Amino acid sequence: MSSQKLANRVKDLQSSAIRELLKHSKMEGVISLGGGIPNPDLFDTEGLRIAMDRVLTEDGHNAFQYGLSEGDPKLREAICQISAERGIQCTPDDVVITSGSQQSLDIVARAIINPGDVIVVERPTYLAALQVFQLAEAELKSVGTDGEGMIVDELEELVKQTPIKAVYIVPTFGNPGGVTLTDARRQQLVALAARYDFLIFEDDPYSEINFSGETFRTLKSHAQAIGVGEQVIYTSTFSKILAPGARVGWITLPSWLKQQAVILKQATDLHTSSLSQALTRHYLESGRLRPQIALISKAYQQKCDALVSALQNELGDRIRFHRPQGGMFLWATFTEAFNTTEWLKTTLNNGVVYVPGEFFYCDRPDTSTLRLSYSTVSEANLAEAARRLKASLPQ
Amino acid sequence: MSSQKLANRVKDLQSSAIRELLKHSKMEGVISLGGGIPNPDLFDTEGLRIAMDRVLTEDGHNAFQYGLSEGDPKLREAICQISAERGIQCTPDDVVITSGSQQSLDIVARAIINPGDVIVVERPTYLAALQVFQLAEAELKSVGTDGEGMIVDELEELVKQTPIKAVYIVPTFGNPGGVTLTDARRQQLVALAARYDFLIFEDDPYSEINFSGETFRTLKSHAQAIGVGEQVIYTSTFSKILAPGARVGWITLPSWLKQQAVILKQATDLHTSSLSQALTRHYLESGRLRPQIALISKAYQQKCDALVSALQNELGDRIRFHRPQGGMFLWATFTEAFNTTEWLKTTLNNGVVYVPGEFFYCDRPDTSTLRLSYSTVSEANLAEAARRLKASLPQ
Repeated sequence: MSSQKLANRVKDLQSSAIRELLKHSKMEGVISLGGGIPNPDLFDTEGLRIAMDRVLTEDGHNAFQYGLSEGDPKLREAICQISAERGIQCTPDDVVITSGSQQSLDIVARAIINPGDVIVVERPTYLAALQVFQLAEAELKSVGTDGEGMIVDELEELVKQTPIKAVYIVPTFGNPGGVTLTDARRQQLVALAARYDFLIFEDDPYSEINFSGETFRTLKSHAQAIGVGEQVIYTSTFSKILAPGARVGWITLPSWLKQQAVILKQATDLHTSSLSQALTRHYLESGRLRPQIALISKAYQQKCDALVSALQNELGDRIRFHRPQGGMFLWATFTEAFNTTEWLKTTLNNGVVYVPGEFFYCDRPDTSTLRLSYSTVSEANLAEAARRLKASLPQ
Repeated sequence: MSSQKLANRVKDLQSSAIRELLKHSKMEGVISLGGGIPNPDLFDTEGLRIAMDRVLTEDGHNAFQYGLSEGDPKLREAICQISAERGIQCTPDDVVITSGSQQSLDIVARAIINPGDVIVVERPTYLAALQVFQLAEAELKSVGTDGEGMIVDELEELVKQTPIKAVYIVPTFGNPGGVTLTDARRQQLVALAARYDFLIFEDDPYSEINFSGETFRTLKSHAQAIGVGEQVIYTSTFSKILAPGARVGWITLPSWLKQQAVILKQATDLHTSSLSQALTRHYLESGRLRPQIALISKAYQQKCDALVSALQNELGDRIRFHRPQGGMFLWATFTEAFNTTEWLKTTLNNGVVYVPGEFFYCDRPDTSTLRLSYSTVSEANLAEAARRLKASLPQ
């Protein structure tokens, strides 16, 4: 095991300790704001059943046989339709189906990163992305975020000093930060990538879960508009809008990276489950995805509103946060010196858990932060959770 | 991209050229002995339907939700039952569910290989294994095989000279070699691993497809019997006996490697499709697997017999081969100087394809070899294929 792998392992062990603690979230009476998972009560079980029935009736053996490493051509075509709705021009040849976003991260990391390459992430950023970049032995650097997403001016200072390979970013309704990069900053980021010749790795699992109706143009779309589409690697998934257990995501690749990505996909697991791909394709053909997304978005918005109100009522100015405009996460920061990792033991005793913020940093962790997920919690329990957080505060 | 990755890519490009050629196997009238895939006509479609119905009826949301990285505990329990039938003692904690054998290879390679570590493979060996070991930047060495499988004496000479990290082996009904390691050599190999302190990576996708009824004790079982079970990493899959498209395999891990493997599984794709795992579990519970395996084995045996007879009739002493005792592959060698890669163009013109043997070597390729797969071809077409091979021979 290399030293980087070891470092990664240590990091994971830390988060394992937290996972251990979070397991208690399944104890009766504990309200968990920790999990980053979709609400299973909102799964379109009926639609999935109908789709599965069509798989078994219409696809016959194909749903159980080996398939292409790049994925089912018809599903890739359907993904191009979805991409067009997101302002991205692509053909099925540009798309590789993956077994979810996590695999997209792993494949892209293995394809583009040589040991020591600098990858810039947001501060805070998605924990599991840190993990795969470390496995690929990247050198990680971070850029701060505010209510408008990544502070691109800060990135500019960095790229002036240091050549970087790529910026990894969840620009819309981010995890864990819950913030969204403004359109002005999107343009600024893409222009910067063009000027300083780095890649943008755009991870977009949440953009459809939109509370405001305001749409945010993807970085890939911005880049294509100014002729640098080849510098953006885009990934998205059906996990948050359909069914995470099916493990179906995709990467939209620049032409220079396609062959390499397919080779890595093949080496990794030959191809994504034919069954899951067929299920997804039939579901998309059923036309139920748009209403389903509307349903999820509305439900999550109500939950988000409930959490925001409850936090304001109970914690007042002890914490500050940006109201999420979509997605599944609210990121809060204590306005005083605080250690949310330590505090978790107290809140668990009082029957509420969250994820301490420090695990979402590759450097300079802010221990006064925490991630609160509202997707699976009832409005009544969100209110109760806030009361329990308040009761856990040091006086 | 590192030089090793590049080397790997080049290797893959070579085999891509062959794949291109093999695509013609789908041309009307071409008989393909090239594909290494199970016969879809033998899929237990009815049983899979029933199992899927139970998934949708009984598992509810769980089949569509995120799951544990190590896999469904009930499926892991069922795998321990299967393992016991193969002479392997393990608990569900020792098992990690993977998205098929390919992923098992990738995860194990990433877990155990540091750049430069020596991995010993059979000559010939499974192409995709070479690929993942090269991705992990292993130094590959090879040991010859004969009708009794890997020549362990040759391995002994090697390990006396060079410390090695692991031996990768498909001991039973191997791919591509079609041969099976004898029990005496199994004992010899395990004793050698104990003496020289290397790992054995036992890849066992085919052992259930058994023509003779003679069972071959797994290397893991042999190793456990002499107290060195911790030195064997065992992997197997449902791909060849149930449905490859579901992408469900597993690794049975030594205790020292478990945590690392789970971390890598998590980084790779979080977990294997919940849907595929649930389908597999319900299928196993239905009790249909044993009769299904018997059905496949009998059908493949008939096909194998047909191919063996046809080759003997048509090609006589131009080739030699060991009659497979199970599995899906027959490995043949021309008794004269020959280049089967070149020859493929001729045979394609005559309407028959195979995989040239040279792609299954990490070094010293024997270009007079070829892999013939009989699993998907009718007995009549196997006979016709042999006639076409004969017609393609240089006079």
